[in-house]
Amino acid sequence: MTVTDVRPSAEPRSSEAPALDAGRPLKVALLGCGTVGSEVARLIVEQADDLRARVGRPLELVGIAVRRANRERPGLDPALFTTDAHALVSRPDVDLVIEVIGGIEPARALILEALANGASVVTANKALLAEDGATLYAAAERHRVDLYFEAAVAGAIPIIRPLRESLVGDEITAVTGIVNGTTNFILDKMDTDGAGFAETLAEAQELGYAEADPTADVEGFDAAAKAAILASLAFHTRVTAADVYREGITDVSSSDIASAREIGCVVKLVALCQLSDEAADGSGRSVSVRVHPAMIPRTHPLAAVGGAYNAVFVESRSAGRLMFYGPGAGGSPTASAVLGDLVTVARNRVRGALGPGESSYAARRVSPIGEVTTRYHLSLEVADVAGVLASVAQVFAEHDVSIQTVRQNGRGADAQLVVVTHRARDSALSATVEALRDLPSVRDVTSVMRVEGEA
Amino acid sequence: MTVTDVRPSAEPRSSEAPALDAGRPLKVALLGCGTVGSEVARLIVEQADDLRARVGRPLELVGIAVRRANRERPGLDPALFTTDAHALVSRPDVDLVIEVIGGIEPARALILEALANGASVVTANKALLAEDGATLYAAAERHRVDLYFEAAVAGAIPIIRPLRESLVGDEITAVTGIVNGTTNFILDKMDTDGAGFAETLAEAQELGYAEADPTADVEGFDAAAKAAILASLAFHTRVTAADVYREGITDVSSSDIASAREIGCVVKLVALCQLSDEAADGSGRSVSVRVHPAMIPRTHPLAAVGGAYNAVFVESRSAGRLMFYGPGAGGSPTASAVLGDLVTVARNRVRGALGPGESSYAARRVSPIGEVTTRYHLSLEVADVAGVLASVAQVFAEHDVSIQTVRQNGRGADAQLVVVTHRARDSALSATVEALRDLPSVRDVTSVMRVEGEA
Repeated sequence: MTVTDVRPSAEPRSSEAPALDAGRPLKVALLGCGTVGSEVARLIVEQADDLRARVGRPLELVGIAVRRANRERPGLDPALFTTDAHALVSRPDVDLVIEVIGGIEPARALILEALANGASVVTANKALLAEDGATLYAAAERHRVDLYFEAAVAGAIPIIRPLRESLVGDEITAVTGIVNGTTNFILDKMDTDGAGFAETLAEAQELGYAEADPTADVEGFDAAAKAAILASLAFHTRVTAADVYREGITDVSSSDIASAREIGCVVKLVALCQLSDEAADGSGRSVSVRVHPAMIPRTHPLAAVGGAYNAVFVESRSAGRLMFYGPGAGGSPTASAVLGDLVTVARNRVRGALGPGESSYAARRVSPIGEVTTRYHLSLEVADVAGVLASVAQVFAEHDVSIQTVRQNGRGADAQLVVVTHRARDSALSATVEALRDLPSVRDVTSVMRVEGEA
Repeated sequence: MTVTDVRPSAEPRSSEAPALDAGRPLKVALLGCGTVGSEVARLIVEQADDLRARVGRPLELVGIAVRRANRERPGLDPALFTTDAHALVSRPDVDLVIEVIGGIEPARALILEALANGASVVTANKALLAEDGATLYAAAERHRVDLYFEAAVAGAIPIIRPLRESLVGDEITAVTGIVNGTTNFILDKMDTDGAGFAETLAEAQELGYAEADPTADVEGFDAAAKAAILASLAFHTRVTAADVYREGITDVSSSDIASAREIGCVVKLVALCQLSDEAADGSGRSVSVRVHPAMIPRTHPLAAVGGAYNAVFVESRSAGRLMFYGPGAGGSPTASAVLGDLVTVARNRVRGALGPGESSYAARRVSPIGEVTTRYHLSLEVADVAGVLASVAQVFAEHDVSIQTVRQNGRGADAQLVVVTHRARDSALSATVEALRDLPSVRDVTSVMRVEGEA
């Protein structure tokens, strides 16, 4: 055989093959037509030529399931709309289903119906994936179809494919994300303006960065769902939202932010997914997954992520430190992620291929928060009496929590002690705080915050 | 034809199918055993259990082609080594071939033989892909096997998959990369230390950040190859290394870096891939692809990319602004990218699936550098005579180059004019510089540098 045998043939390729363009269109059903759904529908129609060239066949939007069919939706054919989502996903001719309704039900039932009907599914539904991803994966597997969900975490930022595919030959040891734009906007604004949480939240709501009911964002539920998904993919295991330790940002005060500044840090709501070392008792490596406000060194790449932007910082054995940065929410960015998945699953269907399924072979234990070790920043209001530092230090020592720095601010009635610890177990730190509250010389423990991220 | 005709086959999926673990191992041939190759070999052996679980079958390293088989290579079975690479890639039992030799030949011939032999190929070979990627893509397509190359651009940073898959439903308008660690290390060090190019290069060579022959890096050849690959993927077209306008960093002086600082910028060697607007003459949208030093605002996300790190900044219509950041070179990071591809093509093989092929349907024209428009920073040594500014301004005006700011430094024999232009055509700027050199009042045009990137 000579090398010239394998030079390009005259055979058409899918991306350039007019012959394939003549193939049957792939039929797409869209569930939900809110901010993301309407943008997805618009792009499928407007970019039809490019999408056809990239898939190798036309994509035809055949139906859009909505709650109220009679609402005005400019630019979209009114005949596409239906309120009967179950009938839409059960149509025998539907190849691809996009779910952007959100929430657990009816989204789960509809996705399962679509998969059972042989359609590949693209979803942005982080809550459902974090609560019951295993059921969805298993159904996709059983029916030999794809389940893609790039839009579920960090909007347009490609992070699912990098974890499922690009880094699949590496050992990921930690994923640290700023994955909620609303809370990042609020904390960034508090840092810039020196304002408190409540007034900044009100401002964020006025500007459209926070919802009227901000609970899912400010209490960390949204970030916790994303953390569960990231940890599952990174560590080849199953982590659900219920496994994620969660604290929101409602208790973050302007004095916490000022304290962070004093030690060269910013306060961020972080989603932390970490793989432990091998356990001494031979039980293998566990994972910890948690969402809470933390002080991050200003020199850390995540510290510079401002406004409503998102970023995911990945540490792995061979690749080292990687960061993925971009807009974490919004109709257009989320629609970009959905369309990327749509083209991928459509290409797979044209080629009779399947993307990666669930990889949970490692079946790792999720550590309770008490076992986690990290550093802590504490602020104590103390009576400025002789020996107060000694008695406080004694409490830390008794609980095996080593102090890195301690600083006394003010004197007399306003005296404050600021303590930064070395790495300690969360349970030991909690016990320390309890004991500190019982000390006669400590009037109050006004703030306890974790310090994360090496510079 | 019924819908079920295009459904995926009944072949079981790998990730949950223990039965497949008992299947025949996939046989891997490795071409090259330098820094990257030896790390790849080590990881295939050491991480065998994890790789098997992720692929669904064991990966078995069956041969390593090297130039000198008798060299000591600790930890690897000497029986694996061969100097007959052609025989290795032609073995009928080889499923997967990894090419980390680099360069055009014999790498091209070996990859084409491997593809013709029915093996999927993973390569890190940016030079070959940038020179003759079309031939490789066509061969992979013809023989129905995969060609993956995540390691060819920006080391461990996942950027190929995001462009080929995650963003395939979006319209990418620009990709700006810091894709050469050596030049970034040198420019960063010049910025920090105020030293000149030659002494900083010598320091980089001592520290192992630059090679004894640094031409490929400092003259921009390496970055140009990567730019060609990025532009091809981002814009669904074919761009070869020969299409890329290229200037290296050997002429960057410490005074250029000081000048950049004065206008709030840093100097970076950037790879710029840009999609034009629709041409007025109906000829469609063209692309420009260029590698050169440029002044970048310090507030731009790329400005903070220090040392030997790489980053790729992507702008797209729906997703907005994204950045991918990480180590751009080195044995371990590059091996991580190779292993990620290896697992992906192995999974595809187990399922009888194929990843995306070439997408070059858009067939866009590549604009010559003269048509490109950008902003410029110029330093002129001038005679401090009455009217010099007027005559200089007149030359800019005659060539239709609009001045944004002009500053005069010093007086008398040392007088210097620093000009920053508005956006202008490169050909107009070149003509302006020629005309300035002919002005009696201009002693020299000491520096011309493009200014890129909105803050």
